[in-house]
Amino acid sequence: MAEFFKTLEAGALGDDTPLAEVLDALRFNADGLVPAIAQDAGSREVLMLAWMNREAIERTLAEGYACYYSRSRQAMWRKGETSGHLQALKSLRFDCDGDAVLLSVEQTGPACHTNRSNCFYLEVQGNQVTMVSAPEA
Amino acid sequence: MAEFFKTLEAGALGDDTPLAEVLDALRFNADGLVPAIAQDAGSREVLMLAWMNREAIERTLAEGYACYYSRSRQAMWRKGETSGHLQALKSLRFDCDGDAVLLSVEQTGPACHTNRSNCFYLEVQGNQVTMVSAPEA
Repeated sequence: MAEFFKTLEAGALGDDTPLAEVLDALRFNADGLVPAIAQDAGSREVLMLAWMNREAIERTLAEGYACYYSRSRQAMWRKGETSGHLQALKSLRFDCDGDAVLLSVEQTGPACHTNRSNCFYLEVQGNQVTMVSAPEA
Repeated sequence: MAEFFKTLEAGALGDDTPLAEVLDALRFNADGLVPAIAQDAGSREVLMLAWMNREAIERTLAEGYACYYSRSRQAMWRKGETSGHLQALKSLRFDCDGDAVLLSVEQTGPACHTNRSNCFYLEVQGNQVTMVSAPEA
């Protein structure tokens, strides 16, 4: 499977590979998951990192809204299905070695369950970690 | 450790927590790693996803250049130490539940080992996956 992506590396701009072949070759971890980064299509803010199994990828592509796999709940979920904070899919990309996903999304409401716009609100500043964003009102 | 980050959630903008406490509470996986996203500080392009152990985080903070842990080589490496494609650290953040890292970096040269500006060059377009960036000359 690593060889599959190694072969693709040599491809030229615009080259196409059937999606089914790429999905078959994705390098899921022992739990059948790959990390997925959600980035806001407008602000380009990195919103969150979550996990996807093959079904979550396929459902995201089919439905046009980000679906992830919750490791704590051991279940697939559509992001925002209870909060309404959906992520409309603009594009989905795989990385060079087929073990990470990048989603470009239009985020409705805050992406983080804490009501902050994104999950990365703890920033190292010297010997301290500082809270750099507040929950939205 | 999940409780540690749960407690931080309630914090206000500007609240500080000692870095050592946060590092102790980080939720590394069974291999002692967390996924780390590198984002270009200028273009806000998502460059790559790699993995960090505690030592890689500490070295990144101490030296000001991104260090990762290579799962294939089972060794820590400073990004660019052979290619020269270093990532100067602008900021390092942790996510809400302490199991992901976001680095904002100034990237020298292409971030991807394929000489593309970033690793996410395989984009789903319908039933195909299309190569959307070319190696730099």
